[in-house]
Amino acid sequence: MERYNYLITQMQKCFLSSRNLGFCFFLLFLGCFSDVVYAQRNDDSIQIRKIFDMALADGKAYENLRTLCKEVGCRISGSPAADSAVGWGYNLLKEMNVDTVYKQAIMVPHWERGNMERAKVFHDDTKLNITALGGSVATNGSLKAQIVVANGIEDLDRLGEKQIKGKIVLFNKPFDPRIINSFEAYSACVGQRYSGASKAAEYGAVAVLVRSMTQKFDNNPHTGSMGYTNELNKIPAAAISTEHADLLLSKLEEKPDLIVVLKMNCKSFPDKQSYNVIAEIKGKTDPKTVITVGGHLDSWDIGEGAHDDGAGIVHSIELLRLIKANGYRPRHTIRVVLFMNEENGNRGGKGYAKWVKESNEKQLMALESDAGGHTPRGFSISATDSQYSSIASYRNLLEPYGCHVFRKSDWGGGVDINPLKLDKELTINPDMILLGFLPDGQRYFDFHHAASDVFENVHKRELEMGAGSIGAIVFLIDKYF
Amino acid sequence: MERYNYLITQMQKCFLSSRNLGFCFFLLFLGCFSDVVYAQRNDDSIQIRKIFDMALADGKAYENLRTLCKEVGCRISGSPAADSAVGWGYNLLKEMNVDTVYKQAIMVPHWERGNMERAKVFHDDTKLNITALGGSVATNGSLKAQIVVANGIEDLDRLGEKQIKGKIVLFNKPFDPRIINSFEAYSACVGQRYSGASKAAEYGAVAVLVRSMTQKFDNNPHTGSMGYTNELNKIPAAAISTEHADLLLSKLEEKPDLIVVLKMNCKSFPDKQSYNVIAEIKGKTDPKTVITVGGHLDSWDIGEGAHDDGAGIVHSIELLRLIKANGYRPRHTIRVVLFMNEENGNRGGKGYAKWVKESNEKQLMALESDAGGHTPRGFSISATDSQYSSIASYRNLLEPYGCHVFRKSDWGGGVDINPLKLDKELTINPDMILLGFLPDGQRYFDFHHAASDVFENVHKRELEMGAGSIGAIVFLIDKYF
Repeated sequence: MERYNYLITQMQKCFLSSRNLGFCFFLLFLGCFSDVVYAQRNDDSIQIRKIFDMALADGKAYENLRTLCKEVGCRISGSPAADSAVGWGYNLLKEMNVDTVYKQAIMVPHWERGNMERAKVFHDDTKLNITALGGSVATNGSLKAQIVVANGIEDLDRLGEKQIKGKIVLFNKPFDPRIINSFEAYSACVGQRYSGASKAAEYGAVAVLVRSMTQKFDNNPHTGSMGYTNELNKIPAAAISTEHADLLLSKLEEKPDLIVVLKMNCKSFPDKQSYNVIAEIKGKTDPKTVITVGGHLDSWDIGEGAHDDGAGIVHSIELLRLIKANGYRPRHTIRVVLFMNEENGNRGGKGYAKWVKESNEKQLMALESDAGGHTPRGFSISATDSQYSSIASYRNLLEPYGCHVFRKSDWGGGVDINPLKLDKELTINPDMILLGFLPDGQRYFDFHHAASDVFENVHKRELEMGAGSIGAIVFLIDKYF
Repeated sequence: MERYNYLITQMQKCFLSSRNLGFCFFLLFLGCFSDVVYAQRNDDSIQIRKIFDMALADGKAYENLRTLCKEVGCRISGSPAADSAVGWGYNLLKEMNVDTVYKQAIMVPHWERGNMERAKVFHDDTKLNITALGGSVATNGSLKAQIVVANGIEDLDRLGEKQIKGKIVLFNKPFDPRIINSFEAYSACVGQRYSGASKAAEYGAVAVLVRSMTQKFDNNPHTGSMGYTNELNKIPAAAISTEHADLLLSKLEEKPDLIVVLKMNCKSFPDKQSYNVIAEIKGKTDPKTVITVGGHLDSWDIGEGAHDDGAGIVHSIELLRLIKANGYRPRHTIRVVLFMNEENGNRGGKGYAKWVKESNEKQLMALESDAGGHTPRGFSISATDSQYSSIASYRNLLEPYGCHVFRKSDWGGGVDINPLKLDKELTINPDMILLGFLPDGQRYFDFHHAASDVFENVHKRELEMGAGSIGAIVFLIDKYF
């Protein structure tokens, strides 16, 4: 009530003095305007409360994640499980009685891990926990070689051909524990995983082992994508668990010329057809303008793809349920896309952007949830200054839910949605808004691309809080843009 | 540099116009002042970065927690394990080479769970997972009775003596999932655990079972303190797991007059002597003014007391290490207190406040970490408006570490430290500052007072981030107050 008291007092003064009738009307206008803003924000906070109530007290995200993880399981592009995931997503969305559900065909890479991936120290038979990196070639039987240790890809020049030739390079650059944002710690190391094999091959290496991309000290090797720069430098590449990377290092101290034996029979096959799965609720006032919200349906072929990116998939599906259950008709068309092939090709993301360009469709905003199902912290926001200011003004509305870090970012919002804005050949609107959902990241790389990325490691309430947060921000952007 | 450009431009204008030399000097002063403030804040952010670097790259909190959980184990007041915990804390602090380490004797309650706590449904022998509430009396052999269900303590009046007399009351009020802050959800239910037995006894109940205080649906019963209002209403009280509360409800639907058999042989004994363990780094400029930082050394007698409150104990110990390792001499005396008996009596907290009062000692601030070892979100702050404004101005310095919710609170900072300020008979300074460390709370009640509160459920980096956050806020308050 203080707001009113102040205005009334000022107006009384104006009338009494009769000196400034214009200012008095200005105050009257201000009063009405502030009423409108106040009522709007009050309305918004009621709507957001409803969204969270539905996500927390009657949420479906957790049970949907259970079926995706336990009935479909891990689902690498091109696999029968990826086909099942497409069917699972399509059927689930169909049951939700939204306006449209369809699939968008794309061709995806097809790589298979095979049934053998083993490593051991030759002289004492110590088993090393490894897993092939996605896209790696096989060893063609046993590959035996000495080890040379490189502290990241940038260390290869120092070592040179003399020390590398004929050996297996152990890329051992760890996450820097001082980096607070674990995604930044990942970015600082992931070069050795993606490009390490090709670079090492240029110096004559015969294979690479890469310290797993995680801060956790355990025995899970973490896979992930890698690529070769040409046909000549295709050497086998595998991740080694952090515990066994350290074990190997300690053995190397005793016996620097020890030999490691590596066997992998992974293989690439011709591309296969797959699909993005898409569902829409048509906009009421501006149906031709689209808000895209998504995660990726594919996962790596170990674990269950629970945090990466089952969480993003069920967050996105839950958004449609929350809108329907809330009886809210959005202004713009809300389109949920379950992208295929984020992990090793991004064919789904690029295919979607291409299709949007060909349709010359106006995209207002795209949001991706692909940073896990942990407790919400906020959003990364790729937007113009004025768009950012508007979005940042919603921060107070999200603060009661702990999701109020609104970080301006040039990086975009997620691998799948970034081509819509950041790929110069594909974008039609370099000023569209990209949002990335930012859950707490301290635990994410414990599970990322590892056998431990299973349903049991996702927390029900944290997952549901994420669904509420995404529901809230989409509601606000749809309403005010 | 923008700041400088603006000031220089303004000063040039002043000199050129020669009209306002006073204003010009004011700007000059402002420039110098803003330099001082800027340099200070820059210094602060460097210091805080150092604190976090040491907590994350060279932290000892996690390994200390491992020994407390695995070598000492759970440690209820009055138990041999609590004595071991005192010894563990005292020796560890002694090894740290701080200025003073000593123990403060207190008398603590002594209750033992006994070796039998069982419940089953009589007609079909279904086992129910229960655990006695701390302080409960035994059943004296088998106690057999029908069940009446109460939706919280407030439901007893509705049921009345007619429905309650001779029966076991199942208090079944669940956490409200819509409440974002899980500590608030807990507060709304915990009355049935603490006072349910006495209130139900007034209506003639023969025992109570209380739905476990957790949002998690699993088979762990969660113990916790309860109290009787007088000798006449002492009836046995136990917690039942959420899964088995629901199981019992479903069985009651089929057979409302089913009988539950309860056997517990827990017992109270005379008080025993125990200790708060205390360590200090003397202040450089104002050694007589004390900043108290603590957690509680006792835990419940199931699980390992890892989150509750092993985390707070190792956070507090780590603070002293960080100060020493940083080579920083605090202005005020930093006193770490490992409080005894928070869980079932708060004798340590009250004893400490009494001792502070008797010494007429000036306490500037007390901080408690007793909300688990999860990822930091901020602090609850009990302070005057002007103290709060000063502390809130540090928020930007903590924002890069995700610990920037600075919540003004009348509740205090923690059970152990609250008597210093909030107990009218014990306080000598109702204007001192109380801070409660606030980690993310979504998972806390999964483990709280249950067998699952073990070391493995504490995340290394999250724990270390907490130590850094506490180190940072203590550094700032010591510096600026």
